[in-house]
Parts: sequence; C-alpha cells; structure tokens
Amino acid sequence: MLLDAAREAAAEAVGCRPDELVFTPSGTRAVHTGMAGVLAGRRRVGGHLIVSAVEHSSVLHSADVHEADGATVTQVAVDRTGSVDVRSYADALRPDTALACLQSANHEVGTEQPVGAVAEVCRAAGVPLLVDAAQSLGWGPVEGDWSVLTASAHKWGGPAGVGLLVVRKGVRFAPQGPLDERESGRAAGFENLPAIVAAAASLRAVRAEAAQEAVRLRELTDRIRARVPELVPDVEVVGDPERRLPGIVTFSCLYVDGETLLHELDRAGFSVSSGSSCTSSTLTPSHVLRAMGVLSEGNVRVSLPPGTPEADVERFLEVLPGAVAAVREKLGASLPITIATEDALIVDALGKRCPIPVIELAKVIGEVPVGATIRVLSDDEAARLDIPAWCEMRNQEYVGEEPATEGTAYLVRRLS
Amino acid sequence: MLLDAAREAAAEAVGCRPDELVFTPSGTRAVHTGMAGVLAGRRRVGGHLIVSAVEHSSVLHSADVHEADGATVTQVAVDRTGSVDVRSYADALRPDTALACLQSANHEVGTEQPVGAVAEVCRAAGVPLLVDAAQSLGWGPVEGDWSVLTASAHKWGGPAGVGLLVVRKGVRFAPQGPLDERESGRAAGFENLPAIVAAAASLRAVRAEAAQEAVRLRELTDRIRARVPELVPDVEVVGDPERRLPGIVTFSCLYVDGETLLHELDRAGFSVSSGSSCTSSTLTPSHVLRAMGVLSEGNVRVSLPPGTPEADVERFLEVLPGAVAAVREKLGASLPITIATEDALIVDALGKRCPIPVIELAKVIGEVPVGATIRVLSDDEAARLDIPAWCEMRNQEYVGEEPATEGTAYLVRRLS
Repeated sequence: MLLDAAREAAAEAVGCRPDELVFTPSGTRAVHTGMAGVLAGRRRVGGHLIVSAVEHSSVLHSADVHEADGATVTQVAVDRTGSVDVRSYADALRPDTALACLQSANHEVGTEQPVGAVAEVCRAAGVPLLVDAAQSLGWGPVEGDWSVLTASAHKWGGPAGVGLLVVRKGVRFAPQGPLDERESGRAAGFENLPAIVAAAASLRAVRAEAAQEAVRLRELTDRIRARVPELVPDVEVVGDPERRLPGIVTFSCLYVDGETLLHELDRAGFSVSSGSSCTSSTLTPSHVLRAMGVLSEGNVRVSLPPGTPEADVERFLEVLPGAVAAVREKLGASLPITIATEDALIVDALGKRCPIPVIELAKVIGEVPVGATIRVLSDDEAARLDIPAWCEMRNQEYVGEEPATEGTAYLVRRLS
Repeated sequence: MLLDAAREAAAEAVGCRPDELVFTPSGTRAVHTGMAGVLAGRRRVGGHLIVSAVEHSSVLHSADVHEADGATVTQVAVDRTGSVDVRSYADALRPDTALACLQSANHEVGTEQPVGAVAEVCRAAGVPLLVDAAQSLGWGPVEGDWSVLTASAHKWGGPAGVGLLVVRKGVRFAPQGPLDERESGRAAGFENLPAIVAAAASLRAVRAEAAQEAVRLRELTDRIRARVPELVPDVEVVGDPERRLPGIVTFSCLYVDGETLLHELDRAGFSVSSGSSCTSSTLTPSHVLRAMGVLSEGNVRVSLPPGTPEADVERFLEVLPGAVAAVREKLGASLPITIATEDALIVDALGKRCPIPVIELAKVIGEVPVGATIRVLSDDEAARLDIPAWCEMRNQEYVGEEPATEGTAYLVRRLS
C-alpha cells in the first residue's frame, strides 16, 4: 500500500499514469534500463540512436555500449549556450531510428533544452523520445509529448537509492537482463520501500515550494552571473542566460586550475564543482564544455539548493576574487621555456598541466610582432579546448593544430 | 571516507580485501552483476554454467538468460533435505565450465550447503565458485576458498537498498552494461551512502551477537520442528535437521491451502511465508520444494529474526493446530465428483486448486479395494508434486501421470 501510494504521488508529479512509473535504484539505472529496454523493444525498426552531445554520462555510456554492439549513434551538437537545435534533432531522425534521447536541462551549465519541440518532431516521426529529467523534475513536470522519462530522487533533495523510470503506454519496451517480477519487471531487486516513500514525499514537498523558490534562486544566480565578470578579470560565464535552471550557475576563469580553485574555495567554506562532476576522476575536460566550445580552464559550477540564504551568495562573491587571484599568482610564477625559430616562437609546455600552457601563451604573445605565429607544444588534452577558447576571448587567431614529435603543436597568430 | 570505512568493515566481516568488495543496490543486483561479469570474463574458457536446483530466483533467472544466449546450464539436483552432493558438483564440472554457483544456505528451507567442499573441487578444476551468501552472512563468514560472493543487507537486518558483491583478486571479471566508474565499475549509479554505512554497521552489530543468538534460535526452531508434527496431524517438516540456518523452519501440512493458512495465522498476529517468497505471485509451487520432492501443499515457512522472544514461539505453537484444523474443515466440505470405470475410479478435480485434488484423493481411496487404481484428473500444476508426495507420506503407490483430454491424469494404486 505504501508502494502504491508512493507510485501514485510520483506519477502525479511527473504527469503520467501510476502503472507507467517504476522505481529504480538510481537515476543512472533508470537511464540504463530505459534506453536498453526501448532499443531492444524497437529492434525491428532499426538500431539507430540519437543523443545530444551534452547528455549525462549514463546516457552517453549507454550509447557507447549500443555502438559497440554494431549500431549507429548520432550525436547532436549544441550551440555555445549548450542548447540543441530542434532542426538538428529533426534532421537526425531516420527511418531506422529506434530512440532519441534529450535531457530536460544540462547538469553542468543549467541550460534548458527545447524538449517539448523535440518531442513533437520525434512524435511526428514515430520515434520515442527519452527525456533525462534528473535536473529539472523537482522544479516541475517535463513539457511536451515525451515517451520515456528518467529522474533521480537525490537530485530533487530526496534520498539516495531511488530513481524513476516512466514508460508511456504504447512504447515498445523489452526489459533486458534476468527476469525479476518486481516493479513490472523493470527494476530487479528488493524494493527500497523506506527510500521510495521518502522520495515521493520529498518530491511533493519541493514541488509545493518550487514556483516561489525558483524566482528567488534565479535572482541569486542572476546576481552571480552579473557580478562575477565585474569582480574577477578574464572570466567567461557559460550557459544560456535565460533558458536555464534556477539554481545552477557556471563560469570559467582564465589562467586558473579548477581543482586548485576548488580547494581554495573549500577552505573558505564553499563546496563547488568543476568540469564535469561525473567524470571528475579523469583528467580530461568536461565533455559538456567541450561540446559547447567554451573555456574549460578554471571552471566553477555553483549549485544553490533550495533554501540557500542570500547571505551565502554575497559571501561567496566576496571570497571569490581573492581565491582566483591566489591561484593565478601561484600558477603564474614559472617562466615559459621558449625557442625562437625562423617562422615562429615555440612555447614548450610539454609535461605541464592546463592551465599552464595557456598561461605561458598569454605571457609570450606580447613578445612577438602582430602577425607572427606562436606554436604551443602541449601534451595536455585540455589544451585542445582551452587554447582556441583563449584565442576567442583575447581576439587572437587560432590557426589550428599539428602533430608534434611529442604532444601536439597549437598554432596561434597574434592579431592585436 | 565513510564509504571506505564501510567497505573495510564489510570486508572484515566477509573475510576479504576491501578492494575486492563493492556495494550494489540489492542482493539481486549483486547476483546479476556477479554472474554476468564472470561469465563474460571467462568467455574464452567456455560458456558452461553450473547452478544448484534450489538457488534463489536471481541466480536461476541469470542462468535462464545465459541459456537463452545459447550456452549450456547444468542444474545440480538436491536430495530430500535440499542439500547438494559434492560429488554431483564435481561430476558437473567440464573443461568449458565458466562458473559454478551455490548458495551458502537455502532461503526457503534453511538447509546449509557444503560450500567449503564444493569450493575445493571447483578450485582444483580452476573454475570460480560464486556463493550466494544472502541467507547466512549475518551468522558468520562463508567457509572455504570461494571466488565470488554475494549478499544482501536487509537479510541480516540491515537497510534495504544495499547488496554486496565480492570478487576475489585473480578472478577474470568483465563488468557488463554501460561504463560507470563508481564502485570499481561494478555497480553503476549514485552511491547510497547512508544505507551503505548503516549496512556495514548493522552487519558488525548482528555478528557481535551471532554466536549466542544462533544457539538460542536453534533451540526455538528445534522446538517447532519437534512439536509441530505432534500437534498437527499429517505434517511433513522439511529441510536438513542438523545442517541448517538457526532461524528458519519449514513444514508442509496435508489437505491445507498455504495461502488460506497464512491468512488464518495473520489474523492471529503471525506473519509467515508459504512456498517461495520470491515467486509467490505466481501460482506454481516453489521450485525449491519441487526440487526436493517434498510436499508443497500447505507449506509454511517460519522465520525467527534475531531477538524473537520464546513466548512468541510458544504462542505460535498454541495457535497453529486450530488454524490448520479450520482450513482443513473449510476445504474438506465439498464432495468429490467420481466416475467408476472398469479399471479405475476417476476423481474429477479439474478446475480445482490444490490442495483440493489431494483432499479428494484422500477421501475416496478408502472406497476402492487394496490393489485398485484411482485416476485423479487435475489441471493444477501443484498436483504433479503433491500427489506423489501424498503417496509417499500415506504409503500408497504413485504409478505415474498420463495426459488427459483436459489436464493430466495422476494414477495412484491403493496399497494399504
């Protein structure tokens, strides 16, 4: 009875029938099960899968498995704000498309996706759209005529250990893996009843305050978006300024190492994230920032959970400039190793982790005449993203990259 | 740090290295992941899988998936106590055996399996043994040189939402499904940290009292095993009388419908189980009782959690005879439909659910001469198990079964 009541409450918040919704052990498991189930259920139609380039790793890794099985995956690009274009989704649809996936909003930069419009073009083509609503479900139901929806309770402030998988009636769905009759055969294992009840109750509770709290948090994140570039030089605020989640704001600071900045802010009592939280143990820059083509250097993501006091935001804005300055001072101390050749100045940044290659580029660009070329040698993968991003911010020309004896040579022409 | 501490505590209780142990969302998921990972990791050796006939449904359903993929599965039979024979496991091993699975103790009848000895023959053959230790881990570590172990926290009195998967170093293991770096890539999804910490703490707590509590509960279950056949006529106590879990006792009552008896006992304040709890929504009898060849009719499983007061057991023994008698009276009221033919008396029990076919057989057997045959027509699957089991209990001869125009005809010869 508790399980039924929780299912009804969650279904009401999602806007679906209770028998379309099952509880999974996490949002990640909901995505894995949802994608695998639709892909298997629609195998006769074909194996083509569409995802956006900025999906959560659970979606992209499911796509990798599907591709490794021999199927084709189309990754739809995003613009500089992190948003997909509805036309790109429409263009990606094929007669053999089994499934399209699109997040309701991005987990790193907060940009909201045009889910309703994408659902419409998918529906017209007879292709189910799976919406990863992990970031937004606490704020409200997902717009439009989607087919499958996934979410995660801890993202809306509920307990760990509960995800939602909603499959609309009429969507062909073949659960994969060993048979288990619990949760309509879509979520194996003993039901975590206490957590499920808490998840449904917390969803109802956050929804009751969502409209009012969204206005308040949006004002606070607007303040961060406006004030950070005034307080800190060489900063790029990323994500869509309007179509975005209320409580997430992300910016990147030139000449700053994100990890070091996180430690500085942590010492001041602020727990923020950098790059992509889900791949933070790898040293490659966030796939989201890379897909957006924005600076990943010194990336900071500030998440304001519901109830965050205004005073905390004000204190963060007081602390941030000093923290960034301290990191820049620390990183900027060493002198670049340069070699002047006939046609270019070579900066040897091999073995140095970003943002050092960009810092060294910035230091030497004033030493070559306008029109001259600098070759930055780097073996840090992040340089591939950050050197072009720096050029765009500093109005210098990014010429391109070449393989070098060691690492890669990034060519920059001084324009100003 | 909390996660590391929980892992160390759990590993100490299991008797493994902390880096061999991961937390999964349930015991079922631990089994699914463990079996799939070893079967994939040892694909080059072959695809042969060995399981016992009385494993938990999570093991048997994983075996079904493996078989559906084209591999061979050997199901090792059990004796009438529910125990496997070590020699049967040894005989089942083949050069292409990828994995053998054996529970530490049975979840329905409490019989302990010879895990240590089976681990030894598997080790000698170079085949990893996966032990489903869900039933026993709270009582102590699993004996012997096993390779993979699974367990479930709620089974030892911990919270829902936590399972354990232990893979010994040196076992080839290839996690299946989408990449996820958490829990060594073996348990995708956001870690349920509060539940994991509680699981480790509760395991430590139950272990501290396990030795003493096992003695006390064993005395109580011994009492049930001894007294029930004295108090209730036509009862078969099942499971090994010695090698068994301290807190589980199972018996079957002739001429009783298990579900109805459960309701009677529930009204008296006792929550017991019948047949197989994991397949209770299906109407077929428990696969465990079927594999043991014992009566499934009127099956009752009594689980005494640690701390169960002696007075509760005494009250149960007071209530049980009346409850069984009430059900027998209710079910025994209708008269059997019989047709006398030249060579047999036909009992038409078509459309009647067990135990009715057995009750009708018992009613009419006195009406035919010794040496005569009765044909019981039944379309209830449970009759296939219960009619032979009744014959064995009542010293009548079970001749065999034949397809009938409708349902199946079960042939019984009166011997006494």
